[in-house]
Parts: sequence; C-alpha cells; structure tokens
Amino acid sequence: MTQAIDTKANPAIQPHYLTGDGAAIRSFLDKFDVFLFDCDGVLWSGDHCFPGTNETLELLRSQGKQVVFVTNNSTKSRTDYKKKFDSLGIPSSAEEIFSSSYSASIYISRILSLPPNKRKVFVIGETGIEQELRSENVPFIGGTDPSLRRDVTPEDYKRIAAGDSSLIDPEVGVVLVGLDFHINYLKLSLAFHYVRRGAVFLATNIDSTLPSAGTFFPGAGSMSAPLIMMLGREPVSLGKPNQAMMDAIEGKFRFDRARACMVGDRANTDIRFGLEGKLGGTLGVLTGVSSKEEFVDGDVRPRAYVDKLADLLGSH
Amino acid sequence: MTQAIDTKANPAIQPHYLTGDGAAIRSFLDKFDVFLFDCDGVLWSGDHCFPGTNETLELLRSQGKQVVFVTNNSTKSRTDYKKKFDSLGIPSSAEEIFSSSYSASIYISRILSLPPNKRKVFVIGETGIEQELRSENVPFIGGTDPSLRRDVTPEDYKRIAAGDSSLIDPEVGVVLVGLDFHINYLKLSLAFHYVRRGAVFLATNIDSTLPSAGTFFPGAGSMSAPLIMMLGREPVSLGKPNQAMMDAIEGKFRFDRARACMVGDRANTDIRFGLEGKLGGTLGVLTGVSSKEEFVDGDVRPRAYVDKLADLLGSH
Repeated sequence: MTQAIDTKANPAIQPHYLTGDGAAIRSFLDKFDVFLFDCDGVLWSGDHCFPGTNETLELLRSQGKQVVFVTNNSTKSRTDYKKKFDSLGIPSSAEEIFSSSYSASIYISRILSLPPNKRKVFVIGETGIEQELRSENVPFIGGTDPSLRRDVTPEDYKRIAAGDSSLIDPEVGVVLVGLDFHINYLKLSLAFHYVRRGAVFLATNIDSTLPSAGTFFPGAGSMSAPLIMMLGREPVSLGKPNQAMMDAIEGKFRFDRARACMVGDRANTDIRFGLEGKLGGTLGVLTGVSSKEEFVDGDVRPRAYVDKLADLLGSH
Repeated sequence: MTQAIDTKANPAIQPHYLTGDGAAIRSFLDKFDVFLFDCDGVLWSGDHCFPGTNETLELLRSQGKQVVFVTNNSTKSRTDYKKKFDSLGIPSSAEEIFSSSYSASIYISRILSLPPNKRKVFVIGETGIEQELRSENVPFIGGTDPSLRRDVTPEDYKRIAAGDSSLIDPEVGVVLVGLDFHINYLKLSLAFHYVRRGAVFLATNIDSTLPSAGTFFPGAGSMSAPLIMMLGREPVSLGKPNQAMMDAIEGKFRFDRARACMVGDRANTDIRFGLEGKLGGTLGVLTGVSSKEEFVDGDVRPRAYVDKLADLLGSH
C-alpha cells in the first residue's frame, strides 16, 4: 500500500494546467467515463459550497459520465452523507456515495474470512460505521453503546485481564477504529485487549486530522494512534489512499480503470489513491489542502490540475 | 536522548550474575553510595510486595547508602506514591521518591525559560501532575478540571478555531501530557491547538502501556500518540530513560554518578536510563518485564543482574 508512484523520477511527467484552456479540458474530459470525487476541498469547504459545483456535476452527468463521491469521513453513513449534499443543495444519490465506513463494512463482510464464532466487530466510532455494518449484516458491539461512555473502574482492569465475558465478548474477531468523538480510556483498553487476543485490527481511515471550522481537529488516525503505539503495528486501513477502498469501489461500479479519473485536493491521499489504483487520470484542484507547488514539484503529482473544479465548465 | 549505549558492540562486557555469590554481591554493593530503584517489577508487582524487599532496603540504609525510588507513574504525586509504599508496608519517605510528574514540574519551573505571559501549563493527566505543579508554583489549567470532562460540541470547534478565550487561554505556553484516565476528544483538541499556537510539547513519560492486573493498559505514551501523529513530532519526555529526569535527580540529591547504581527490571527504560546517565552501575532484576536473555544478549545490558532483589541479602 505504501508503494508511492514517484512521478518525480520522470521529469517529463508534468501535470497539465487546464484552467482557461477549453480544448485541453474537452480532451481531458473525453478520456473518462467515470469521475471519482473527493468532497471537502473539492465540491465544498466545510459548510460552504463552491460556486459552480452543481453546474460542473450537471455537465458531467449530461455527458453520460458516472460520478462517485469518495469520502474518508467515517462518522457518517452514506445516507447521512447524502443529507450533507442535500443541505448544500448539491444533487446526489446515496448510491453515488462511497464512504470509508461502507468500504470497511464491505471488507469485513465480503473479503475477511472470519471463523463462525469470531464474526463480531468491536467498533470505535460513531453511528456512520454502525449503520454501514448493519447494511452488510455484520454484528457489532461498542460504537455508540452508552454503557461504554463512562470512566474506567478498578474492577474493569480485573475483568478485562481475566477476559470476563461481562466486558470481553469472546466472539469479537475484528476491531474497527474510526473517528469517535466519545473516545475514552475504557474503549481504548478494550480495543487493545481484543487485538491482543487475536482480533483483526482495521481502521476506516488513518487521516490524523479532520478539517473543521477552517482548522484541524483529531481525525480517525488519531483514534488508532494509541493502539498502534501499544501494539507496535498498524491497522489495515479501508480509506483513501488504501487500495482496498478502490477495489471495493470498482467491485460496486464495475468500470474500466483506464477510463476513470480521481479528482481531489490532497496529493498524498486523493491523487495517490488514483495513481496507485492505476486509474487513467488524476485531477488536482487548488481549493483545498495541496498547493500548486505540491502538484507541480511534489512526489505525488496529478496528471492535470485546475484552480477550481468549476474551471471544467470552461470547455464550452 | 536516543543514543543507545550498545554494550553488545563489546562482547567482553557480559553482565555479572550475582545471585548466590556472596563475595561478588559485597564487592558490587561496596562500589555505590546511591541506589536508584525502579519500583513496580523490582520492589513489588501490582499490589504484591516481593519477599525480602524491606530487608534489602534496610540492609542498604544500614550501610549508609541513599535510596531513591524513581517512577514513571505520572498519575500519582510523590505524596500519593508514598501511600503506595505505606500500603505495602515498605518504609520510605516522600523525599526519597522521584516521579515523572515531579521531574516534569522541575523541568518547567527551573529549566524552561518561558516568557512572563506564557507560563501556564495545559495538563492532560490526573491529580499527581497537578500536585507536583503546585509544589513548584507552576500555574496550570486542564488536568482534572470537570468542565473538560464532557463531549465536544459544534460550538467548541468554532471557539477553538477562533482562539476564543472561553476555551483557549492565551497564557498557555506548555502542554504537559501524562496518563489521563479521562482522556477525551475535547482535551486532545485543545492540546493540539495549544501546541500549534506555539506551546512547548512535553510528556511526563512515553511508556505506551501501564502494567495493571497482570496485564497491560494504555500508558502515558498512548495519550501523546494522537498528538504525535497530528503534529508530526515527539514531545520532550521527562521520564525514564530521558536524561532530563536524571539531571533533575542529580540536582536534588547531589551525588557522584560514578558511585550510583540504577536497579530495574526493564532493559530499555531502567537500564538504559542508568547507562545513558553514565552511572557507575546498573543492576537488572528478573522479577519484571525483561528476561535473562534480554539482559545477557540484548542491546542494552546491565552491569550485573540477580534473579530477584532480595538476592542481595545473600552477601552476609
């Protein structure tokens, strides 16, 4: 998963700057049938929809192209995320949305081969993960369970150490860690002991931070960080840029990767995701995290870039 | 701080096994005036005092040797830790106890040069840290403040992002992270933003785990782990094996390092602490974490080792 495609090794590969060049934009768009979109920093920023987002999506759809919204936000289910689109006035369908919690649920239900008595998932995370696990009929505990939103007690240590079934469920075979606004010492202790007892260690995504209110807050990766330090190993991450997510997207939408393009604002997650997934194209936008310098001179470069998504409207 | 003293590079340096060899024990003890003791795994395990602990300490004291108890446990103040000794029936004085929270307090009050308007410490941790900061007259916020033991709200994001003084104290110049059984999303968010605003990032210690009930639970290092991931850098740690702690111990007890010996059960923290501190001796005990193989063949080897501390009684 860490095999960076180092476009810097070939200085001939320079991202193509498309803004204002109608012919180049038309030619670029014609190469693809499917566009995978990162959302925050591309379609909107926080609660602010970028001008021209709807028109650009409408243009692509009118040309018969499939659009897929790919988000690492694990706190929301696809249905929740659809509401975010609705609140910003962006037409979408839940079917077009692909989140890391959905990706994780698919991975657990369809790819992991768990023994029959080890099929439960211990969740660190919010309702988004729970809803997606339910949608795939994956049994789980933890998550938003209010009985775990409490202080740890001296009795807990003994019960956890003893594997007492009042706290340690012997059927747990997976620990899935996503962003949890109610993270606490008890949940971390339980997750650690489940993995030590042999549970598979998964993360919805490992973004260390979450953009919010124009700055950053702890992200899903920060929930995994204590466990990574204690266990001395990393979880399998089901979010961008991990290719397990690309495989799940392809499994659902059944497209030709050569005819697909990833659109994103972050070189190290979005663009890397597209490059490592061997998509036909990658398109950077400058309305989010990565700068022009990063796209042009960085280790991970998109095939093309625009100042903002709506610049694609300039093809006509 | 990471300069390992690699005794393996010199195969002639083999730890001396002292158990049962009265003459060798006498000779070893005669070399030192000061003994620094790790506690859990050396004097006791959990709530169980090892047989002979009191007699061994009594022997050393009767020979006029200074004993110092050095603990990375940051949740307890020296006074609290004294109670632990009392509860196990081990004679001690608070003056003999040196904890990572005390070490951190000394570092902040006497070594860090903070501007007058940046002298407050934002604490992630329990009362032990608070008590030690008070003992050094260091102003602090956070810690056990019940107003921070709550869920994060949408309003919090905006207030933190804006640096609103209702949540972000402009006088905070240090973030000190220790073991906090009430760790939560709000505290992590505040600590992250304080460091981003320029606060010094300190940790009482970075042990990833805490031994308890015969197994392991999240340690102080696991509280720093999310911040390390988000910030992309490590805190200055004031616990073993960091030499800031050794400097503080020497500053207080004023001893000749060549005549001091560190006694511990963990090669990578206790023994390393003594070796990197250039103490005259290091003594490993096999009643804790490290095995005989680790002491004899590992990268960090004590000068001598015994099966258990009370074997030192065999000198007479």
